Amino acid sequence: MLDEFYIEKLVKKKFPYKSRFFPTGIGDDSAVLNLKDSSLVVSSDSQVQDVHFNLKNFKPNEISSRALAVSVSDICAMGAEPKFFLNSLFIPRSTKKFFINRLFEGFKFSSDEFGVKLIGGNVSLSASLIIDVTVIGQCINNKFKERGKSKLGDIIYVSGKVGDAANGMTLLRKTRIYNKSEKGLISKYIAPKPKIKLGKILGQIDYLTSMIDVTDGLSIDLNRLLSGSSKTLGAFIIWEKIPKTKVNKEFISDKLFSNNVLGGGDDYELLFTVKKENHDDFKKLIERKKLEVSEIGYVASNKGIKLSRGGRTTTLEIKGFTHRF
Amino acid sequence: MLDEFYIEKLVKKKFPYKSRFFPTGIGDDSAVLNLKDSSLVVSSDSQVQDVHFNLKNFKPNEISSRALAVSVSDICAMGAEPKFFLNSLFIPRSTKKFFINRLFEGFKFSSDEFGVKLIGGNVSLSASLIIDVTVIGQCINNKFKERGKSKLGDIIYVSGKVGDAANGMTLLRKTRIYNKSEKGLISKYIAPKPKIKLGKILGQIDYLTSMIDVTDGLSIDLNRLLSGSSKTLGAFIIWEKIPKTKVNKEFISDKLFSNNVLGGGDDYELLFTVKKENHDDFKKLIERKKLEVSEIGYVASNKGIKLSRGGRTTTLEIKGFTHRF
Repeated sequence: MLDEFYIEKLVKKKFPYKSRFFPTGIGDDSAVLNLKDSSLVVSSDSQVQDVHFNLKNFKPNEISSRALAVSVSDICAMGAEPKFFLNSLFIPRSTKKFFINRLFEGFKFSSDEFGVKLIGGNVSLSASLIIDVTVIGQCINNKFKERGKSKLGDIIYVSGKVGDAANGMTLLRKTRIYNKSEKGLISKYIAPKPKIKLGKILGQIDYLTSMIDVTDGLSIDLNRLLSGSSKTLGAFIIWEKIPKTKVNKEFISDKLFSNNVLGGGDDYELLFTVKKENHDDFKKLIERKKLEVSEIGYVASNKGIKLSRGGRTTTLEIKGFTHRF
Repeated sequence: MLDEFYIEKLVKKKFPYKSRFFPTGIGDDSAVLNLKDSSLVVSSDSQVQDVHFNLKNFKPNEISSRALAVSVSDICAMGAEPKFFLNSLFIPRSTKKFFINRLFEGFKFSSDEFGVKLIGGNVSLSASLIIDVTVIGQCINNKFKERGKSKLGDIIYVSGKVGDAANGMTLLRKTRIYNKSEKGLISKYIAPKPKIKLGKILGQIDYLTSMIDVTDGLSIDLNRLLSGSSKTLGAFIIWEKIPKTKVNKEFISDKLFSNNVLGGGDDYELLFTVKKENHDDFKKLIERKKLEVSEIGYVASNKGIKLSRGGRTTTLEIKGFTHRF
């Protein structure tokens, strides 16, 4: 069966190009461009109707804001500063001007919030609503963070809380009155916030070895973060250390909660590793800058992810959102 | 009714931003980025199933090649050199690996031909096949050509021949054996060639005032080229001077032929203006560099396009391909 991994492999095989101007090659959160003195990062990501969102749960301005947020997040995952964006709109027949106006209100609001400037785009008729956003960011001091550069023993950190967006999506399917905490989870699903400020701070830390954003699920993205390293590395993570928001078991069972935390996507938190010998420096930095990040485990020598929970260790199934065709 | 012009106006109103780093603002063929010493141009364009192509007339590799060509053409229209691209793929359910392989063969072949390197992209499930390509180009000597900078009396030029692609599309609808000339027209429709070499030459000419590529039709794109000038300008063009390929009247009537030449899109030729006082210099350059370009008229003081044909002058209806929803 055709899935996105097949396409990713095909792309890497057909386009192995690297150069002084494009030092990292294809396959990270963003492309790094070295043009004269300035390193740029470029990334595109999309939101497709009935794949990433539906028109029942999302207002038009929320769809465009989310499309911008998820692409900006890829720049944050490189530790760079998002600067410019282009938006490609694919619009179904009979779409109303009102809808388009609201879509652009979302772009305007979020571009102001994220500090990115619209510099181009295109528009076409299509069978369903799709927004494809390309974001260009600038590296600060020419520094950036890739995937696959972690070393054995590195400490694994994640920002904010994971599983919130997936739990929010679960709650959204149950139409009822939500309490404040539940509204927060739903909002994280509908209106994710790229970690711009945090990404810029983390991007400057020389002992931070690898970084990615959690888009498809903690386990699948942790696996992506570690694969491609010179050695085949895995991870050991501790359930009790993973930052998460408690939910009402009446609406989300323990099993679903675990799945959402370990394999639910859409959080757009930053997942990264720091060198063990600099762990104390990093802890001081967290304190000083009041960074919202949590240590969840360390990089281990065996491939795969081991999860310790209640004192028992199991091998985690790598799962998360995957496009299949 | 919602159409692309409404969206274009909305974008320009909501995003009027210009700066030292983004000197031209939104709305040209590509965005110009000034980052340190290097001016970049960035543009995105797309190919949508059953809007720009269908699966009956296009092989998968032709679809991807065309998607790359049309985006690269926007960089050529700025007089810059295309360097890198990102491709966003929207793929319907049940698409076969074979189809994807051919799609990437097209990307590979054309990226080599055009000299552009793939640096990123994304992939998602969707209702129909869509390819959105973002191309990044570099300005040579920091020079680039915009729309809307023509002056009264400037000479209007177009490269290659216009109407060929539209005539090719007309012929393609009549299934039969084609002669060599007809095959050439069909090929121009299926596999347009962005004018990379010519664009780079034209981009360096200081007396070349404005440039655009002919994507939606000669009249509509000429109107776009001239609108936005400080003064409201129009054009006077001469039918007999417009470079075009003769066709068999049995298959394409005189009326349809005229419509295809004046309002048919998909040619991806360069349309530009040069200062009158430098016209002789330009003629010498054409001779010396053997440029395939034709003088077709001049910039006039009244809005709209006047067409002289067989000695009679009429006002041309501005028409061409427009996305309506």
